[in-house]
Amino acid sequence: MGSICNKAIGVFFEYDTPRIVHIRSKKVGVINRLLQLIIIGYVIGYAIVYKKGYQEVDAVQSAVTTKLKGVVYVNQSQYPDITTSVWDVAEYVVPPQENNAFFVITNLIETPKQTIGICSEDPKVIGSNCTTSSQCPAGKVLPAGNGLLTGECNTTAGLCLVRAWCPVENGALKPPDPPALLGSKDFTVFIKNNIQFPKFKVKRRNLPDNASDEFFQTCNYGSHSIDCPILRLETIVREAGENYSAMAKEGGVIEIQIQWNCNLDLSVTECVPKYIFRRLDSADYKISKGYNFRYAKYYKENDTEYRTLFKAFGIKFILSVTGEAGKFNFEPFLINVGSGIGLLGIATVLCDIAVLYFLKARHLYKDKKYLQVVGDDAYKQLDGQNDEDKSE
Amino acid sequence: MGSICNKAIGVFFEYDTPRIVHIRSKKVGVINRLLQLIIIGYVIGYAIVYKKGYQEVDAVQSAVTTKLKGVVYVNQSQYPDITTSVWDVAEYVVPPQENNAFFVITNLIETPKQTIGICSEDPKVIGSNCTTSSQCPAGKVLPAGNGLLTGECNTTAGLCLVRAWCPVENGALKPPDPPALLGSKDFTVFIKNNIQFPKFKVKRRNLPDNASDEFFQTCNYGSHSIDCPILRLETIVREAGENYSAMAKEGGVIEIQIQWNCNLDLSVTECVPKYIFRRLDSADYKISKGYNFRYAKYYKENDTEYRTLFKAFGIKFILSVTGEAGKFNFEPFLINVGSGIGLLGIATVLCDIAVLYFLKARHLYKDKKYLQVVGDDAYKQLDGQNDEDKSE
Amino acid sequence: MGSICNKAIGVFFEYDTPRIVHIRSKKVGVINRLLQLIIIGYVIGYAIVYKKGYQEVDAVQSAVTTKLKGVVYVNQSQYPDITTSVWDVAEYVVPPQENNAFFVITNLIETPKQTIGICSEDPKVIGSNCTTSSQCPAGKVLPAGNGLLTGECNTTAGLCLVRAWCPVENGALKPPDPPALLGSKDFTVFIKNNIQFPKFKVKRRNLPDNASDEFFQTCNYGSHSIDCPILRLETIVREAGENYSAMAKEGGVIEIQIQWNCNLDLSVTECVPKYIFRRLDSADYKISKGYNFRYAKYYKENDTEYRTLFKAFGIKFILSVTGEAGKFNFEPFLINVGSGIGLLGIATVLCDIAVLYFLKARHLYKDKKYLQVVGDDAYKQLDGQNDEDKSE
Repeated sequence: MGSICNKAIGVFFEYDTPRIVHIRSKKVGVINRLLQLIIIGYVIGYAIVYKKGYQEVDAVQSAVTTKLKGVVYVNQSQYPDITTSVWDVAEYVVPPQENNAFFVITNLIETPKQTIGICSEDPKVIGSNCTTSSQCPAGKVLPAGNGLLTGECNTTAGLCLVRAWCPVENGALKPPDPPALLGSKDFTVFIKNNIQFPKFKVKRRNLPDNASDEFFQTCNYGSHSIDCPILRLETIVREAGENYSAMAKEGGVIEIQIQWNCNLDLSVTECVPKYIFRRLDSADYKISKGYNFRYAKYYKENDTEYRTLFKAFGIKFILSVTGEAGKFNFEPFLINVGSGIGLLGIATVLCDIAVLYFLKARHLYKDKKYLQVVGDDAYKQLDGQNDEDKSE
Repeated sequence: MGSICNKAIGVFFEYDTPRIVHIRSKKVGVINRLLQLIIIGYVIGYAIVYKKGYQEVDAVQSAVTTKLKGVVYVNQSQYPDITTSVWDVAEYVVPPQENNAFFVITNLIETPKQTIGICSEDPKVIGSNCTTSSQCPAGKVLPAGNGLLTGECNTTAGLCLVRAWCPVENGALKPPDPPALLGSKDFTVFIKNNIQFPKFKVKRRNLPDNASDEFFQTCNYGSHSIDCPILRLETIVREAGENYSAMAKEGGVIEIQIQWNCNLDLSVTECVPKYIFRRLDSADYKISKGYNFRYAKYYKENDTEYRTLFKAFGIKFILSVTGEAGKFNFEPFLINVGSGIGLLGIATVLCDIAVLYFLKARHLYKDKKYLQVVGDDAYKQLDGQNDEDKSE
Repeated sequence: MGSICNKAIGVFFEYDTPRIVHIRSKKVGVINRLLQLIIIGYVIGYAIVYKKGYQEVDAVQSAVTTKLKGVVYVNQSQYPDITTSVWDVAEYVVPPQENNAFFVITNLIETPKQTIGICSEDPKVIGSNCTTSSQCPAGKVLPAGNGLLTGECNTTAGLCLVRAWCPVENGALKPPDPPALLGSKDFTVFIKNNIQFPKFKVKRRNLPDNASDEFFQTCNYGSHSIDCPILRLETIVREAGENYSAMAKEGGVIEIQIQWNCNLDLSVTECVPKYIFRRLDSADYKISKGYNFRYAKYYKENDTEYRTLFKAFGIKFILSVTGEAGKFNFEPFLINVGSGIGLLGIATVLCDIAVLYFLKARHLYKDKKYLQVVGDDAYKQLDGQNDEDKSE
């Protein structure tokens, strides 16, 4: 009993450390130090300095709001089908506000004065042609049709009659070329982006810190002024590698990425955003190219409801804010130094291979590194090259 | 001085490597190799092959746009309270476009021809009942009320008078059953999803690479055609495990997840999306079930503004694109192999336990493994079992 | 040949284990055990218990819908420029539904009865002043202008004529103070948040599990009732550290963060959300302060289209759901224990430094730890302090 207790206490007063073979040799030493140098160089140069392994990082938290300016006049002699001639911000931004996005109408097909009634289906709808009423089953809706078949055929036009918003949209119409609202290329968008790195209690905005009122009234984002938060739509589209009038015709989707990559070990005033523009959709769809949707304006005359249907083509701008900030902190620094020390073990492994298999004096080193022990159930090798009595 | 310098140079020509006890024993060897085999098997089989540890991964970047098609006729003999009989895409998608989402009206309660004035509060509003004007404090708004109390009581109806959009919505009305726009189950949505894996410069779309125009005009997503990007709303709801007409009545939220999990070591044509459908809200709320909101259409008559108020019930579809691509790369491969080698240390630890505590020859092995050193301040153990002279 | 085969088989019956120097010394032992205690304490106390390293975690998946209630009366004697006097949910939520967000109008500038025509530009637009027509180049749009210059000057008013929605908005008008819809502070929003942790098959809602109908009709989120999902707008703004009437005047952006941090080793009923409110934009922009946008209501009279233009100021509420759940699992537990054992190596490194450089008996320990081997190409040190014959 006393013996067990004694042993247990003894455990607190002992220490195990690996026995090390210390080899003094120019060749081995140089190989070893060289490998260690490479590993230390990698750890310090790449993991700590280049990858900023000494920094704690924090992701950006952000809010973006946008404000569009600009007005375009649609000449009715050039576009006789468009009844609204002056398009300002209340007209071309649909819906009027969105979260981290905005949409600008760049082209449109208008179908004025529709009301619910019975009229001929659009000839472009497959199955709308008929010669007898039996070809127009009552109550059915043709795929991509505009209304409910009444079961009758307008034999004069050779088209089924539908109960729909009449007259139906003319499916044969292509979006006008040049786009009706091509002038939208001169619209500007003021992007207000407030960000913060909560861990470091740093708040920033995408504005020059000392900007004056005049700066905002006259500045324009571009190659000369990348800190101005007012961007022309054409500049955005061009920097995304696209042609504005081509894109305006059928519509599309563009991402405006605001990148905040900040090194907060430097002055906080150097923490400024970078804008990256990218087209997200691809221009070469066979059907349903670009980006468009339908909406309507409603009015009443003599208690009958009418609507003006718009097929609006346009550019959807999606705002995304990304980035992270780094600042010196002991914890990541120690972790990187620690794992660097761990990597030094690789040098030992590689050196051992050189020492034990390739150097002339390998037998000497092998004898010293290994303490041969032959168990009572050892597999007897015929050559008997290594026997335990040689070992120590 | 020369001695210090000498020593410093000497450091470059030395090498430390752990001294190893090399045991030749069938039992120990087999245990050791078996453990190593298990670890190597785990590393190669699980971490490298199964978890594709040899691949660099990249997250998907995506843009989604949607296009709805379909029209539904609301029979006024069945639904006398709904004045609009033909519902097409400009009517039932509110707002007309959203970012990564779309909403389809499936049911509605209409309150036509409201104008600002004074009328009786809805009897379903708690506190609207009155017998004298003192029960209707002027200027107050009842919780969930429709307008401002005028301070007077309509004693005929027994209801407080309010300044509101009159007549107020009838709170007793339940959403029609069957839903007024149940025909919306046949609507189709064309989902256009362009993705890219920027690290690998791979761009893909959710379309078959060789799809023809006819394919898009006739195809329909379903068990037979999972690569068709045109989905019937009923199919979506059914695959989410819900019943369309039940959900259409009160509304709800459905997620359409598009998963792109691609192994780019294979042909890029095998990088195709998978659609997953899931209901996000739960159907069993006690109050304010499902998903609905109110919007209005405005018109003027004789300079008086009127509105038609809609309480729109419907299904909100939220599109989310997830996934990642992997491709062979040396860096993750080496890291996995390296950490696998590190894990081999576990075999040594476990073998040591077997060798030092469980084998018959454990005293021999212990003597060989440990070099006993007794410091000048050693804790003297009574049994004196291990003394240093036995060690080497 | 037989010899090689023999050797190959022999490999399976051997085992390498590092030779260990076992030091019995009170000083060294105590240092060693103390360091090990600190490391084990860190691993168990911090990494396993505090950081819940024994738990598998899963991120939250969520759907949020909101429902606003409330109505406000705008007194036309106080705000003569606002023609609509009763603002209910269909009026002040624009657009009527959004994804994870909602917008409430709190203030507005109304420009009634605009129609497309020719009128004087707003005098606040820079460049709108003129004395002769040559100062108004035809076809140009002034920056921040309301329409297309016709090329003529209204010499009476001293302003260029524009083709625009006339009369143009009066740029000199400031948003009313106090805000026209200040009563919106009493609006309530019912937030319905369904979440799940798919890995653990746990579904939760932001409602008390046993809530009655009366609870929802009467409850109000606040310091006394943090589990009520019905929040007054003023409460939200106040908890974000802002003043409602100041914010209502110019508008702003507020984040409502719903945090679900759940320990599923406890009862699932303790998995309840926490609401955090934060203003995202900053209040001190020089131009284009707060948050506002323009939208219009359209009507027709005698076939002429009119619109009422609203410059709507308001608060945009953005809902974000974050959090994760943890539950006991063997894999993360073992990984943490394993890496804890790995960290014990640090104790050995630090003890070695003490043992080899600082203790009195360091020469004894050095001799025992290191087996000196002098290669045939050793760098000869003058002092010859360590020679191999002393080593073993």
